Amino acid sequence: MAEYDCIIIGGGYAGLSAAKALKEANKRVLLLEARDRIGGRVITQRHDDGTYVDLGGSYLGREQPRMYAFAKEFGVETFDAYTPGKNILLYQGKHLPYPGAIIPLVLWEQLDLNFLIQRFERLARTVNVDRPWETPDAVRLDNTTLAEWIRRNSWTKAARETLTMVSETIWGARTTEISALHAFFYAKAGVDLTTLATSAKGAQDQLIKGGSQTIVDKIHARLGDSVRIGEPVVAIDQSSSDADGVVTVTTSKSSYKARRVIIAIPPPQVLRITFNPPLPHQRRSLLEHMPMGSYWKYIALYKKAFWREKGFSGEASSPDGLLSVLFDASPQEGYAVLMGFVVGENARTLSTHTTEERKQRILNALALFHGKEARHPFRLVEHTMMDEEYIGGCPVGNPAPGMWTTLGPWLRKPFHRVHWAGTETSSVWNGYMEGAVASGQRAAEEILKLEIDTWTIPTNNGS
Amino acid sequence: MAEYDCIIIGGGYAGLSAAKALKEANKRVLLLEARDRIGGRVITQRHDDGTYVDLGGSYLGREQPRMYAFAKEFGVETFDAYTPGKNILLYQGKHLPYPGAIIPLVLWEQLDLNFLIQRFERLARTVNVDRPWETPDAVRLDNTTLAEWIRRNSWTKAARETLTMVSETIWGARTTEISALHAFFYAKAGVDLTTLATSAKGAQDQLIKGGSQTIVDKIHARLGDSVRIGEPVVAIDQSSSDADGVVTVTTSKSSYKARRVIIAIPPPQVLRITFNPPLPHQRRSLLEHMPMGSYWKYIALYKKAFWREKGFSGEASSPDGLLSVLFDASPQEGYAVLMGFVVGENARTLSTHTTEERKQRILNALALFHGKEARHPFRLVEHTMMDEEYIGGCPVGNPAPGMWTTLGPWLRKPFHRVHWAGTETSSVWNGYMEGAVASGQRAAEEILKLEIDTWTIPTNNGS
Repeated sequence: MAEYDCIIIGGGYAGLSAAKALKEANKRVLLLEARDRIGGRVITQRHDDGTYVDLGGSYLGREQPRMYAFAKEFGVETFDAYTPGKNILLYQGKHLPYPGAIIPLVLWEQLDLNFLIQRFERLARTVNVDRPWETPDAVRLDNTTLAEWIRRNSWTKAARETLTMVSETIWGARTTEISALHAFFYAKAGVDLTTLATSAKGAQDQLIKGGSQTIVDKIHARLGDSVRIGEPVVAIDQSSSDADGVVTVTTSKSSYKARRVIIAIPPPQVLRITFNPPLPHQRRSLLEHMPMGSYWKYIALYKKAFWREKGFSGEASSPDGLLSVLFDASPQEGYAVLMGFVVGENARTLSTHTTEERKQRILNALALFHGKEARHPFRLVEHTMMDEEYIGGCPVGNPAPGMWTTLGPWLRKPFHRVHWAGTETSSVWNGYMEGAVASGQRAAEEILKLEIDTWTIPTNNGS
Repeated sequence: MAEYDCIIIGGGYAGLSAAKALKEANKRVLLLEARDRIGGRVITQRHDDGTYVDLGGSYLGREQPRMYAFAKEFGVETFDAYTPGKNILLYQGKHLPYPGAIIPLVLWEQLDLNFLIQRFERLARTVNVDRPWETPDAVRLDNTTLAEWIRRNSWTKAARETLTMVSETIWGARTTEISALHAFFYAKAGVDLTTLATSAKGAQDQLIKGGSQTIVDKIHARLGDSVRIGEPVVAIDQSSSDADGVVTVTTSKSSYKARRVIIAIPPPQVLRITFNPPLPHQRRSLLEHMPMGSYWKYIALYKKAFWREKGFSGEASSPDGLLSVLFDASPQEGYAVLMGFVVGENARTLSTHTTEERKQRILNALALFHGKEARHPFRLVEHTMMDEEYIGGCPVGNPAPGMWTTLGPWLRKPFHRVHWAGTETSSVWNGYMEGAVASGQRAAEEILKLEIDTWTIPTNNGS
């Protein structure tokens, strides 16, 4: 007999949301986490001096009802990220401050970029986010890399390089690694490209007081004994489940039985688990073609936000620089924070340098944006999810060109009694915390619907 | 103390060659294979009626000295694949027989294709096969997908589609999934593109009598008790190796200690193993970006080679068809064989159909090449390595665009006492059986050189 109604594998927002939803429906759940902590790609590092930094997902966007519902439920405060003042564009050796959202390129570059983004948004609106392979002209768009689409639809190098920088920051992948269809899908899943790239009122609108792990910790506490950490799953056996309806999940320490399983881990991590019967090759091949993004995150802590005094918002970007984007991610009081990203090819190249070399490069890059003062944070935190065991990269795993229109339907298709969650399986806010929550809740619903008969008469199933 | 000088993980040609070389140097070796058979991507299926088919790697090319040395050493015969007669091009609804190597396109398409291939070959010659990232203009070539390179360097659709078909057959991947640099590297590693695409005197020159597993079986027999099958490795611990020089390898059944480890399995399979200390993220990220090719192989057995009687070689190709290429892969006597491939996008789409649908589609495709008789093989064998647990695809794992010039150096770099083999790590005949053998022998040499001191005074290391 099954000890659990459902075992959830993975303790990020997706797994936590699934476990929470099932527990609220009075199901017996067990959440297994491979790492020695809960939160997945959401990690708030807290220091002895009272400062903290978000090493992973941190921002909330306006149109993210699920995350805001959690914040409300658990009494967690959110606040607007600081945005007043001029942004900075650093490009081709020029330091260009500008107010608002209009990037200070010369007129024809400006027009070209505008036209390029409008065309992007127009095509993104045509995507079927639930079934991207049913989007008009899906096969052609999926067989066109985003790099190629950008090149074909732009006239100036500046427009091309700007959109490329924005894209690589969003996906943590080079524009040669993803298809135009995936880019359009992803943008629409999170409203549109402009929203994804925008701070105030966009995807980087607000921050969570105390760090994004605050909500994670509260859900974790609520789940209590239903969560086990430090137990990587090594095998899932559902060879007898047709007969007895039971799936056996084996971890490094023990073995558990459940009627259903939800897997809520980064796509490439699924490849670690041995399945009996084996995972269908379609699903396996899809997972092999969904590498995690390449990202380094740098968080520089200063006594005060010196850039604000000079009229800058702190926000900056550089299509040809090491740090592609930079934000003022300060808490509401006490100290100030600049948070920047090294993405895609730059991230991989940075990985070949020593810690000290990286530090110097980053301090130089900060100074290029905000002057000499930027060179002297009282703390500089470096982090890459590529280095975190059982995660492997950030912000998201992206399907390679051509995958959506061939093996796309396998992404969410249950495998006997195994269901799939994780932000990569979400058709809303794919790649974001909100998408993770949506995926966990959706997987929980799948199971509640399927199991309604067996659960209303719980002893009906014999043995 | 270590029980073994070296543990080799993976029993394909790479692992077998490494084990053989080390055993011949009087080292204590253990080869661990996850599957219940030896041979990896080389599988000869033998039937009760005396027929056999190669489900995986099968052909030998002229310039493959290592494989021929094995054949000689073990007294295994090889023979020329059948090639006399006309080949067939099936394109845009036309059935075009042609003698020799000149594909029967119209003149300007012909010239365009010729020019395109010449340019490819010229650039391939500039590659540094040992360090592809040091090739002239490497970064640009690695950030250009092969699809884009082909489009930019061709004028006619026919030339473009023909080279695309050839490429997808060679790599089992879409031309959007690999970079021009990788394509050039791979071609040069196997002499040149023309060689890779050619039967007589090219990479498909000869077949191994009794099937390509014949040599595998002989090496396996020679290694005897040093080989254990059905033991997937789950963990590799070298956390104490700085102190005691010992690596602990844990399988599903037991645990073994060795001074060195060689990993000789398909790149994505390495992601299944838990390493302590963890695998460097550079290596991990590289592995996540090396998916296995998507390939279906069909082998149709006929009483006689009816196509030869009509003056055909059996060889055929179709840039816009389901079967991209077809060969006469008959043994020397008894019965006749047509062997064809469905590759890349077509392979993934084919995976979404039922067995019966696939069979009908393939019989139709065979008939389009060779007429109604082709519809009636006495046996039709279907196979895909995508479906084989612990393999996951064929013919080869290909790095995504941009990987060679960022994380390329991590491909072969030893990780403490863990060394890397497998055809994907080879700078000669990468992706082929010959490359697997070369990689195994190279890894064995690495270890023999490093361990020469400890081995000459074997009790010198204390404990």
